[in-house]
Amino acid sequence: MALESYVVVHNIAKRHNVGTLARSATAFGVSELILVGRRDFNSFGSHGSTTHIRFRHFHSLQDARHFLKEKDCDICGVEITDDAKPINQHPFKKSTAFLLGNEGTGLSAKECEICDFFVYIPQYGGGTASLNVTVAASIVLHHFGGFAERFRDGNKFIVAEKPMKQGRRNYCAETEETIAEERKARRENAANNFFDETGNGNSSSNLLDALFVND
Amino acid sequence: MALESYVVVHNIAKRHNVGTLARSATAFGVSELILVGRRDFNSFGSHGSTTHIRFRHFHSLQDARHFLKEKDCDICGVEITDDAKPINQHPFKKSTAFLLGNEGTGLSAKECEICDFFVYIPQYGGGTASLNVTVAASIVLHHFGGFAERFRDGNKFIVAEKPMKQGRRNYCAETEETIAEERKARRENAANNFFDETGNGNSSSNLLDALFVND
Repeated sequence: MALESYVVVHNIAKRHNVGTLARSATAFGVSELILVGRRDFNSFGSHGSTTHIRFRHFHSLQDARHFLKEKDCDICGVEITDDAKPINQHPFKKSTAFLLGNEGTGLSAKECEICDFFVYIPQYGGGTASLNVTVAASIVLHHFGGFAERFRDGNKFIVAEKPMKQGRRNYCAETEETIAEERKARRENAANNFFDETGNGNSSSNLLDALFVND
Repeated sequence: MALESYVVVHNIAKRHNVGTLARSATAFGVSELILVGRRDFNSFGSHGSTTHIRFRHFHSLQDARHFLKEKDCDICGVEITDDAKPINQHPFKKSTAFLLGNEGTGLSAKECEICDFFVYIPQYGGGTASLNVTVAASIVLHHFGGFAERFRDGNKFIVAEKPMKQGRRNYCAETEETIAEERKARRENAANNFFDETGNGNSSSNLLDALFVND
Protein backbone atom coordinates (compact mmCIF):
# COMPACT_ATOMS: atom_id res chain seq x y z
CA MET A 1 0.00 0.00 0.00
CA ALA A 2 1.39 3.35 -0.97
CA LEU A 3 0.90 6.35 1.27
CA GLU A 4 -0.04 9.54 -0.45
CA SER A 5 0.53 13.11 0.52
CA TYR A 6 -1.37 16.27 -0.34
CA VAL A 7 -0.66 19.92 0.21
CA VAL A 8 -3.58 22.21 0.97
CA VAL A 9 -3.25 25.97 0.81
CA HIS A 10 -6.04 28.33 1.72
CA ASN A 11 -6.09 31.74 0.01
CA ILE A 12 -2.44 31.78 -0.96
CA ALA A 13 -1.32 35.38 -1.29
CA LYS A 14 1.97 35.50 -3.16
CA ARG A 15 2.03 34.20 -6.69
CA HIS A 16 5.67 33.16 -6.75
CA ASN A 17 5.06 30.83 -3.82
CA VAL A 18 2.82 28.58 -5.93
CA GLY A 19 5.69 27.85 -8.30
CA THR A 20 8.24 26.97 -5.62
CA LEU A 21 5.61 25.02 -3.72
CA ALA A 22 4.83 22.96 -6.84
CA ARG A 23 8.54 22.40 -7.38
CA SER A 24 9.08 21.00 -3.87
CA ALA A 25 5.84 19.02 -4.07
CA THR A 26 7.12 17.37 -7.26
CA ALA A 27 10.45 16.54 -5.64
CA PHE A 28 8.79 14.90 -2.65
CA GLY A 29 6.18 12.94 -4.60
CA VAL A 30 3.06 14.83 -3.53
CA SER A 31 -0.11 13.62 -5.27
CA GLU A 32 -2.04 16.86 -5.51
CA LEU A 33 -1.71 20.50 -4.63
CA ILE A 34 -5.11 21.64 -3.36
CA LEU A 35 -6.01 25.29 -3.44
CA VAL A 36 -8.95 26.41 -1.35
CA GLY A 37 -10.75 29.71 -1.67
CA ARG A 38 -8.87 32.24 -3.70
CA ARG A 39 -8.28 30.83 -7.15
CA ASP A 40 -6.64 33.47 -9.29
CA PHE A 41 -5.98 31.30 -12.34
CA ASN A 42 -3.92 33.81 -14.14
CA SER A 43 -1.60 34.31 -11.27
CA PHE A 44 -0.19 30.86 -11.94
CA GLY A 45 0.00 31.18 -15.69
CA SER A 46 2.47 28.72 -17.09
CA HIS A 47 3.75 27.87 -13.66
CA GLY A 48 2.31 24.62 -12.52
CA SER A 49 0.39 23.80 -15.65
CA THR A 50 3.50 22.06 -16.85
CA THR A 51 4.32 20.06 -13.77
CA HIS A 52 3.56 16.48 -12.87
CA ILE A 53 1.57 17.73 -9.91
CA ARG A 54 -2.17 17.79 -10.18
CA PHE A 55 -3.94 20.92 -8.94
CA ARG A 56 -7.41 20.83 -7.45
CA HIS A 57 -9.62 23.63 -6.25
CA PHE A 58 -12.32 23.80 -3.61
CA HIS A 59 -14.40 26.79 -2.65
CA SER A 60 -14.53 25.91 1.02
CA LEU A 61 -12.38 24.22 3.62
CA GLN A 62 -15.24 21.84 4.39
CA ASP A 63 -15.37 20.72 0.75
CA ALA A 64 -11.64 20.04 0.86
CA ARG A 65 -12.01 18.07 4.08
CA HIS A 66 -14.84 16.01 2.59
CA PHE A 67 -12.71 15.13 -0.44
CA LEU A 68 -9.72 14.16 1.70
CA LYS A 69 -11.81 12.08 4.09
CA GLU A 70 -13.21 10.15 1.12
CA LYS A 71 -9.61 9.25 0.41
CA ASP A 72 -9.09 8.19 4.04
CA CYS A 73 -6.55 10.93 4.57
CA ASP A 74 -5.48 12.52 7.82
CA ILE A 75 -5.42 16.30 7.75
CA CYS A 76 -2.36 17.71 9.48
CA GLY A 77 -2.10 21.41 10.21
CA VAL A 78 1.37 22.93 10.16
CA GLU A 79 0.95 25.24 13.12
CA ILE A 80 2.29 25.94 16.60
CA THR A 81 -0.63 24.80 18.74
CA ASP A 82 -0.44 23.58 22.35
CA ASP A 83 -0.67 19.97 21.29
CA ALA A 84 1.40 20.21 18.09
CA LYS A 85 4.09 17.53 17.73
CA PRO A 86 7.58 18.29 16.43
CA ILE A 87 7.81 17.19 12.79
CA ASN A 88 10.94 15.11 13.44
CA GLN A 89 8.86 12.75 15.56
CA HIS A 90 6.84 11.82 12.43
CA PRO A 91 3.41 11.55 14.07
CA PHE A 92 1.87 10.04 10.91
CA LYS A 93 -0.29 6.98 10.47
CA LYS A 94 -1.50 7.00 6.90
CA SER A 95 -1.94 9.17 3.84
CA THR A 96 -1.78 12.76 4.98
CA ALA A 97 -2.79 16.17 3.70
CA PHE A 98 -0.82 19.12 5.04
CA LEU A 99 -2.67 22.37 5.58
CA LEU A 100 -0.46 25.42 5.51
CA GLY A 101 -1.32 28.91 6.60
CA ASN A 102 -1.50 31.77 4.24
CA GLU A 103 1.88 33.48 4.26
CA GLY A 104 2.64 35.75 7.15
CA THR A 105 -0.01 34.44 9.49
CA GLY A 106 -0.61 31.12 11.12
CA LEU A 107 -3.70 29.00 10.56
CA SER A 108 -6.98 30.66 11.44
CA ALA A 109 -9.50 29.09 13.81
CA LYS A 110 -11.58 27.98 10.80
CA GLU A 111 -8.54 26.36 9.22
CA CYS A 112 -7.57 24.61 12.46
CA GLU A 113 -11.10 23.20 12.67
CA ILE A 114 -10.65 20.86 9.71
CA CYS A 115 -7.34 19.43 11.02
CA ASP A 116 -6.99 16.08 12.76
CA PHE A 117 -3.66 16.97 14.37
CA PHE A 118 -0.82 19.48 14.21
CA VAL A 119 2.92 19.50 13.67
CA TYR A 120 5.46 22.27 14.11
CA ILE A 121 9.03 22.74 12.96
CA PRO A 122 11.46 23.09 15.88
CA GLN A 123 13.73 26.10 15.66
CA TYR A 124 17.16 26.74 16.99
CA GLY A 125 17.47 30.44 16.57
CA GLY A 126 15.55 31.68 19.54
CA GLY A 127 12.30 31.38 17.70
CA THR A 128 12.28 34.94 16.48
CA ALA A 129 11.94 34.17 12.80
CA SER A 130 9.14 32.45 10.99
CA LEU A 131 9.73 30.33 7.92
CA ASN A 132 8.62 31.00 4.39
CA VAL A 133 5.53 28.92 3.50
CA THR A 134 7.36 26.84 0.87
CA VAL A 135 10.27 26.21 3.21
CA ALA A 136 7.89 25.02 5.94
CA ALA A 137 5.99 22.81 3.47
CA SER A 138 9.22 21.35 2.10
CA ILE A 139 10.58 20.37 5.52
CA VAL A 140 7.29 18.70 6.39
CA LEU A 141 7.08 16.86 3.05
CA HIS A 142 10.70 15.75 3.36
CA HIS A 143 9.89 14.09 6.70
CA PHE A 144 6.63 12.58 5.46
CA GLY A 145 8.50 11.14 2.47
CA GLY A 146 10.93 9.38 4.79
CA PHE A 147 8.08 8.07 6.91
CA ALA A 148 6.13 6.81 3.89
CA GLU A 149 9.22 5.01 2.61
CA ARG A 150 9.80 3.23 5.92
CA PHE A 151 6.09 2.45 6.24
CA ARG A 152 6.07 0.87 2.80
CA ASP A 153 9.07 -1.19 3.65
CA GLY A 154 8.00 -2.49 7.03
CA ASN A 155 10.06 -0.93 9.74
CA LYS A 156 13.42 -1.27 8.09
CA PHE A 157 15.13 2.06 7.80
CA ILE A 158 15.70 2.69 4.15
CA VAL A 159 16.66 5.81 2.39
CA ALA A 160 15.04 7.20 -0.72
CA GLU A 161 16.97 7.31 -3.92
CA LYS A 162 19.41 10.02 -4.64
CA PRO A 163 17.82 12.40 -7.07
CA MET A 164 19.38 12.40 -10.50
CA LYS A 165 22.16 14.90 -10.75
CA GLN A 166 20.94 17.59 -13.02
CA GLY A 167 22.66 19.84 -15.41
CA ARG A 168 22.14 23.49 -16.01
CA ARG A 169 18.52 24.66 -15.82
CA ASN A 170 17.33 21.33 -14.46
CA TYR A 171 16.83 19.83 -17.84
CA CYS A 172 15.45 16.37 -17.35
CA ALA A 173 15.42 13.66 -19.93
CA GLU A 174 11.84 12.56 -20.32
CA THR A 175 10.55 9.08 -20.90
CA GLU A 176 7.43 8.31 -22.90
CA GLU A 177 5.72 7.45 -19.67
CA THR A 178 6.45 10.75 -17.94
CA ILE A 179 5.42 12.65 -21.05
CA ALA A 180 2.10 10.79 -21.13
CA GLU A 181 1.56 11.41 -17.45
CA GLU A 182 2.35 15.06 -17.82
CA ARG A 183 -0.01 15.46 -20.77
CA LYS A 184 -2.77 13.85 -18.75
CA ALA A 185 -2.19 16.21 -15.83
CA ARG A 186 -2.17 19.18 -18.18
CA ARG A 187 -5.39 18.09 -19.86
CA GLU A 188 -7.04 17.73 -16.48
CA ASN A 189 -5.74 21.03 -15.21
CA ALA A 190 -6.88 22.69 -18.40
CA ALA A 191 -10.31 21.08 -18.16
CA ASN A 192 -10.58 22.50 -14.67
CA ASN A 193 -9.75 25.91 -16.04
CA PHE A 194 -6.85 26.20 -13.66
CA PHE A 195 -4.52 27.91 -15.98
CA ASP A 196 -4.53 30.48 -18.64
CA GLU A 197 -3.69 28.30 -21.59
CA THR A 198 -4.25 30.87 -24.27
CA GLY A 199 -1.38 31.30 -26.59
CA ASN A 200 1.47 31.31 -24.15
CA GLY A 201 3.39 28.89 -26.31
CA ASN A 202 4.68 26.98 -23.36
CA SER A 203 4.41 23.56 -24.95
CA SER A 204 8.15 23.20 -25.19
CA SER A 205 9.60 19.78 -24.58
CA ASN A 206 11.49 20.86 -21.52
CA LEU A 207 8.45 21.51 -19.41
CA LEU A 208 9.95 21.38 -15.96
CA ASP A 209 12.38 23.97 -17.13
CA ALA A 210 9.56 26.37 -17.84
CA LEU A 211 8.04 25.70 -14.45
CA PHE A 212 11.21 26.11 -12.50
CA VAL A 213 12.45 29.22 -14.13
CA ASN A 214 12.17 31.15 -10.89
CA ASP A 215 14.75 29.32 -8.84
CA MET B 1 30.56 23.45 23.76
CA ALA B 2 28.15 24.89 21.24
CA LEU B 3 28.24 23.78 17.64
CA GLU B 4 27.97 26.51 15.08
CA SER B 5 26.68 26.44 11.55
CA TYR B 6 27.49 28.63 8.58
CA VAL B 7 25.97 28.93 5.14
CA VAL B 8 28.27 29.62 2.22
CA VAL B 9 26.95 30.72 -1.15
CA HIS B 10 29.15 31.28 -4.15
CA ASN B 11 27.96 33.79 -6.74
CA ILE B 12 24.32 33.75 -5.78
CA ALA B 13 22.24 34.76 -8.77
CA LYS B 14 18.74 35.67 -7.65
CA ARG B 15 18.37 38.58 -5.27
CA HIS B 16 15.20 37.39 -3.57
CA ASN B 17 16.94 34.20 -2.51
CA VAL B 18 19.25 36.10 -0.17
CA GLY B 19 16.27 37.37 1.83
CA THR B 20 14.60 33.96 2.23
CA LEU B 21 17.95 32.34 2.91
CA ALA B 22 18.65 34.86 5.70
CA ARG B 23 15.18 34.23 7.09
CA SER B 24 15.71 30.46 7.33
CA ALA B 25 19.25 30.93 8.62
CA THR B 26 17.87 33.10 11.44
CA ALA B 27 15.23 30.51 12.30
CA PHE B 28 17.80 27.73 12.52
CA GLY B 29 20.41 29.66 14.47
CA VAL B 30 23.07 30.00 11.78
CA SER B 31 26.06 32.10 12.89
CA GLU B 32 27.00 33.74 9.60
CA LEU B 33 25.89 33.84 6.00
CA ILE B 34 29.06 33.87 3.89
CA LEU B 35 28.94 35.19 0.36
CA VAL B 36 31.81 34.33 -1.91
CA GLY B 37 32.58 36.04 -5.18
CA ARG B 38 29.74 38.12 -6.49
CA ARG B 39 28.93 40.76 -3.95
CA ASP B 40 26.23 43.01 -5.35
CA PHE B 41 25.60 45.04 -2.21
CA ASN B 42 22.65 46.87 -3.54
CA SER B 43 20.85 43.75 -4.52
CA PHE B 44 20.29 43.00 -0.84
CA GLY B 45 19.33 46.52 0.12
CA SER B 46 17.37 46.47 3.32
CA HIS B 47 17.09 42.72 3.25
CA GLY B 48 19.52 41.17 5.62
CA SER B 49 20.94 44.38 7.04
CA THR B 50 18.22 44.17 9.61
CA THR B 51 18.58 40.57 10.61
CA HIS B 52 20.40 38.92 13.47
CA ILE B 53 22.51 37.08 10.95
CA ARG B 54 26.00 38.34 10.26
CA PHE B 55 27.08 38.53 6.63
CA ARG B 56 30.66 38.03 5.56
CA HIS B 57 32.24 38.28 2.14
CA PHE B 58 35.27 36.59 0.59
CA HIS B 59 36.62 37.07 -2.86
CA SER B 60 37.67 33.46 -3.30
CA LEU B 61 36.57 30.03 -2.19
CA GLN B 62 40.05 29.40 -0.79
CA ASP B 63 39.76 32.48 1.43
CA ALA B 64 36.44 31.22 2.73
CA ARG B 65 37.92 27.79 3.41
CA HIS B 66 40.84 29.36 5.27
CA PHE B 67 38.49 31.36 7.49
CA LEU B 68 36.32 28.32 8.25
CA LYS B 69 39.29 26.07 8.99
CA GLU B 70 40.57 28.67 11.49
CA LYS B 71 37.25 28.13 13.24
CA ASP B 72 37.73 24.36 13.12
CA CYS B 73 34.70 23.96 10.89
CA ASP B 74 33.89 21.09 8.54
CA ILE B 75 32.85 22.19 5.10
CA CYS B 76 29.90 20.19 3.81
CA GLY B 77 28.84 20.47 0.18
CA VAL B 78 25.14 20.02 -0.54
CA GLU B 79 25.49 18.04 -3.73
CA ILE B 80 24.70 14.67 -5.27
CA THR B 81 28.16 13.12 -5.49
CA ASP B 82 28.98 9.40 -5.51
CA ASP B 83 29.95 9.44 -1.85
CA ALA B 84 27.33 11.93 -0.63
CA LYS B 85 25.41 10.83 2.47
CA PRO B 86 21.66 11.33 2.86
CA ILE B 87 21.04 14.32 5.11
CA ASN B 88 18.76 12.34 7.42
CA GLN B 89 21.75 10.26 8.51
CA HIS B 90 23.31 13.42 10.02
CA PRO B 91 26.94 12.74 9.09
CA PHE B 92 28.19 15.63 11.23
CA LYS B 93 30.95 15.77 13.80
CA LYS B 94 31.42 19.39 14.73
CA SER B 95 30.67 22.94 13.65
CA THR B 96 29.80 22.83 9.97
CA ALA B 97 29.62 25.22 7.06
CA PHE B 98 27.24 24.29 4.26
CA LEU B 99 28.24 25.17 0.73
CA LEU B 100 25.33 25.49 -1.66
CA GLY B 101 25.43 25.67 -5.41
CA ASN B 102 24.41 28.70 -7.31
CA GLU B 103 20.76 28.29 -8.25
CA GLY B 104 20.00 26.04 -11.16
CA THR B 105 23.28 24.18 -11.25
CA GLY B 106 25.04 21.92 -8.83
CA LEU B 107 28.42 22.66 -7.26
CA SER B 108 31.26 23.16 -9.70
CA ALA B 109 34.53 21.18 -9.51
CA LYS B 110 36.18 24.21 -7.87
CA GLU B 111 33.44 24.42 -5.29
CA CYS B 112 33.60 20.69 -4.56
CA GLU B 113 37.35 21.04 -3.99
CA ILE B 114 36.95 23.01 -0.76
CA CYS B 115 34.46 20.54 0.74
CA ASP B 116 35.32 17.90 3.34
CA PHE B 117 32.25 15.79 2.61
CA PHE B 118 28.88 15.91 0.90
CA VAL B 119 25.23 15.43 1.76
CA TYR B 120 22.18 15.11 -0.47
CA ILE B 121 18.47 15.38 0.16
CA PRO B 122 16.63 12.15 -0.67
CA GLN B 123 13.65 12.60 -2.94
CA TYR B 124 10.47 10.65 -3.32
CA GLY B 125 9.13 11.99 -6.54
CA GLY B 126 11.19 10.12 -9.08
CA GLY B 127 14.01 12.60 -8.78
CA THR B 128 12.89 14.69 -11.72
CA ALA B 129 12.69 17.97 -9.83
CA SER B 130 15.48 19.87 -8.15
CA LEU B 131 14.86 21.97 -5.07
CA ASN B 132 15.07 25.71 -4.74
CA VAL B 133 18.36 26.76 -3.09
CA THR B 134 16.68 28.15 0.03
CA VAL B 135 14.53 25.04 0.39
CA ALA B 136 17.62 22.81 0.16
CA ALA B 137 19.53 24.98 2.65
CA SER B 138 16.59 25.00 5.07
CA ILE B 139 16.21 21.21 5.09
CA VAL B 140 19.93 20.79 5.73
CA LEU B 141 19.97 23.43 8.50
CA HIS B 142 16.89 21.90 10.11
CA HIS B 143 18.74 18.57 10.38
CA PHE B 144 21.97 20.15 11.58
CA GLY B 145 20.02 22.04 14.25
CA GLY B 146 18.62 18.78 15.58
CA PHE B 147 22.07 17.19 15.56
CA ALA B 148 23.67 20.14 17.35
CA GLU B 149 20.98 20.04 20.02
CA ARG B 150 21.50 16.33 20.68
CA PHE B 151 25.27 16.80 20.62
CA ARG B 152 25.05 19.53 23.23
CA ASP B 153 22.91 17.39 25.42
CA GLY B 154 24.90 14.20 25.29
CA ASN B 155 23.09 11.59 23.30
CA LYS B 156 19.68 12.11 24.77
CA PHE B 157 17.12 12.86 22.13
CA ILE B 158 15.75 16.26 22.86
CA VAL B 159 13.68 18.51 20.75
CA ALA B 160 14.24 22.18 20.20
CA GLU B 161 11.78 24.66 21.54
CA LYS B 162 8.64 25.45 19.72
CA PRO B 163 9.07 28.77 18.02
CA MET B 164 6.91 31.52 19.45
CA LYS B 165 3.58 31.71 17.74
CA GLN B 166 3.59 34.88 15.77
CA GLY B 167 0.90 37.24 14.79
CA ARG B 168 0.30 38.90 11.51
CA ARG B 169 3.43 39.98 9.65
CA ASN B 170 5.71 38.12 12.04
CA TYR B 171 5.93 40.93 14.52
CA CYS B 172 8.23 39.81 17.27
CA ALA B 173 8.49 41.43 20.65
CA GLU B 174 12.11 42.37 21.15
CA THR B 175 14.11 42.19 24.34
CA GLU B 176 16.90 44.63 25.17
CA GLU B 177 19.36 41.86 24.51
CA THR B 178 18.13 41.06 21.01
CA ILE B 179 18.01 44.75 20.15
CA ALA B 180 21.63 45.18 21.27
CA GLU B 181 22.68 42.11 19.32
CA GLU B 182 20.91 43.30 16.24
CA ARG B 183 22.46 46.76 16.45
CA LYS B 184 25.89 45.18 16.72
CA ALA B 185 25.30 43.01 13.64
CA ARG B 186 24.03 46.02 11.73
CA ARG B 187 27.03 48.12 12.70
CA GLU B 188 29.34 45.36 11.56
CA ASN B 189 27.51 44.79 8.33
CA ALA B 190 27.53 48.51 7.66
CA ALA B 191 31.26 48.73 8.45
CA ASN B 192 31.80 45.98 5.92
CA ASN B 193 29.90 47.99 3.38
CA PHE B 194 27.53 45.11 2.79
CA PHE B 195 24.43 47.13 2.43
CA ASP B 196 23.27 50.31 0.96
CA GLU B 197 22.52 52.16 4.16
CA THR B 198 21.90 55.53 2.58
CA GLY B 199 18.61 57.02 3.48
CA ASN B 200 16.37 54.01 3.12
CA GLY B 201 14.73 54.82 6.42
CA ASN B 202 14.64 51.22 7.48
CA SER B 203 15.44 51.86 11.12
CA SER B 204 11.95 50.97 12.21
CA SER B 205 11.57 49.09 15.45
CA ASN B 206 10.09 46.02 13.81
CA LEU B 207 13.19 45.09 11.91
CA LEU B 208 12.44 41.48 11.15
CA ASP B 209 9.24 42.66 9.61
CA ALA B 210 11.18 44.74 7.12
CA LEU B 211 13.42 41.80 6.32
CA PHE B 212 10.68 39.29 5.86
CA VAL B 213 8.38 41.35 3.76
CA ASN B 214 8.76 38.94 0.86
CA ASP B 215 7.21 35.87 2.37
